[in-house]
Amino acid sequence: MKAPIDFYFDFSSPYSYIASEWIEALAARYGRTVRWHAILLGATFQVAQLKSPVSYPLKRDYSLRDFRRSARFEGVPYLQPDEFPIPTLQAARTFWWLNDSQGGAQAAAWARSGLRAYFTRGVLLSRPEALKTLAAAGGIDAALAETAWNDAQWKTRLKRANDEAIAAGVFGAPFFFVDGEPFWGNDRKAQIERWLASGPF
Amino acid sequence: MKAPIDFYFDFSSPYSYIASEWIEALAARYGRTVRWHAILLGATFQVAQLKSPVSYPLKRDYSLRDFRRSARFEGVPYLQPDEFPIPTLQAARTFWWLNDSQGGAQAAAWARSGLRAYFTRGVLLSRPEALKTLAAAGGIDAALAETAWNDAQWKTRLKRANDEAIAAGVFGAPFFFVDGEPFWGNDRKAQIERWLASGPF
Repeated sequence: MKAPIDFYFDFSSPYSYIASEWIEALAARYGRTVRWHAILLGATFQVAQLKSPVSYPLKRDYSLRDFRRSARFEGVPYLQPDEFPIPTLQAARTFWWLNDSQGGAQAAAWARSGLRAYFTRGVLLSRPEALKTLAAAGGIDAALAETAWNDAQWKTRLKRANDEAIAAGVFGAPFFFVDGEPFWGNDRKAQIERWLASGPF
Repeated sequence: MKAPIDFYFDFSSPYSYIASEWIEALAARYGRTVRWHAILLGATFQVAQLKSPVSYPLKRDYSLRDFRRSARFEGVPYLQPDEFPIPTLQAARTFWWLNDSQGGAQAAAWARSGLRAYFTRGVLLSRPEALKTLAAAGGIDAALAETAWNDAQWKTRLKRANDEAIAAGVFGAPFFFVDGEPFWGNDRKAQIERWLASGPF
């Protein structure tokens, strides 16, 4: 049994969204599963003393263009949200609530539906009403989800997930570990594939 | 006649070095030439309020690993220099002196020999004696080269090249323009190739 691929993402990260659309298929082609980890980039940026690429003046225009182009390159639909980035605390806490109470598959399904909603339809995951509608559409009890994301238990759980990610060396998203080897960025797909196909290079 | 590809590099940038090893062959496959531009990342970082990836604590270890891995991925020899990064003012001024007095091909040959010397043999391009030896090995008059890199004319020429790069939107290296489309990073090779093969996507 080969080790699962660890996939760290933030609900407000365009490159995380693009990667979330290919990681499962890529892993499956090489007999791997994916362990999803919702994190808050804000927390890792703070520790790593980094900022979002769109917070730098010269880099902003390029980044917005590259988000769209990188999505087209992967054949993934993409619509740049007007409100960007957004706080994703509630979406991420809901992820960990689902993960720990219903399992990784349910949490990953929530992650995919949240990323698609924000990056293809502009659904603001920062708004409780939008999140509840999205939860219900995915067969999740919206009232329970809201209770969970307001619950100290799941706040702590997300904080722990962030701390563990940082301790593992994660400083951005998407971030991957394959057999302990770290890969940062949607643009490391080809390197990940070579690693999966033929091992360390 | 298709437009040349503009390729911006810094003599102290590992990803610039790796890209410098594939850009000419890639361009030639699609009937393009390459216009090389030596720049100083320090100057663009300052304007863009960015820093080198190795100046961030969490990012440093990953970056050093990714430099080596990305080189292996492209089949390019790589030896991480102990002294890194280094000032590359003289090497870059020599580039512009060669470019303007002998032509782009001579300047590009100097660029390739400088990048290879630093990233495969640890030759410190920041040391005048090492630069003069390297120049002589490439059939360049070392005394003339030294005169050029100390000359106000070539200091100004490099400053202008930096200013023009920043005005064009360059904020890092390697940076490419293909038909006006900006691409940042060695890891945009596949996107550049698709653009060259089939136009805008």
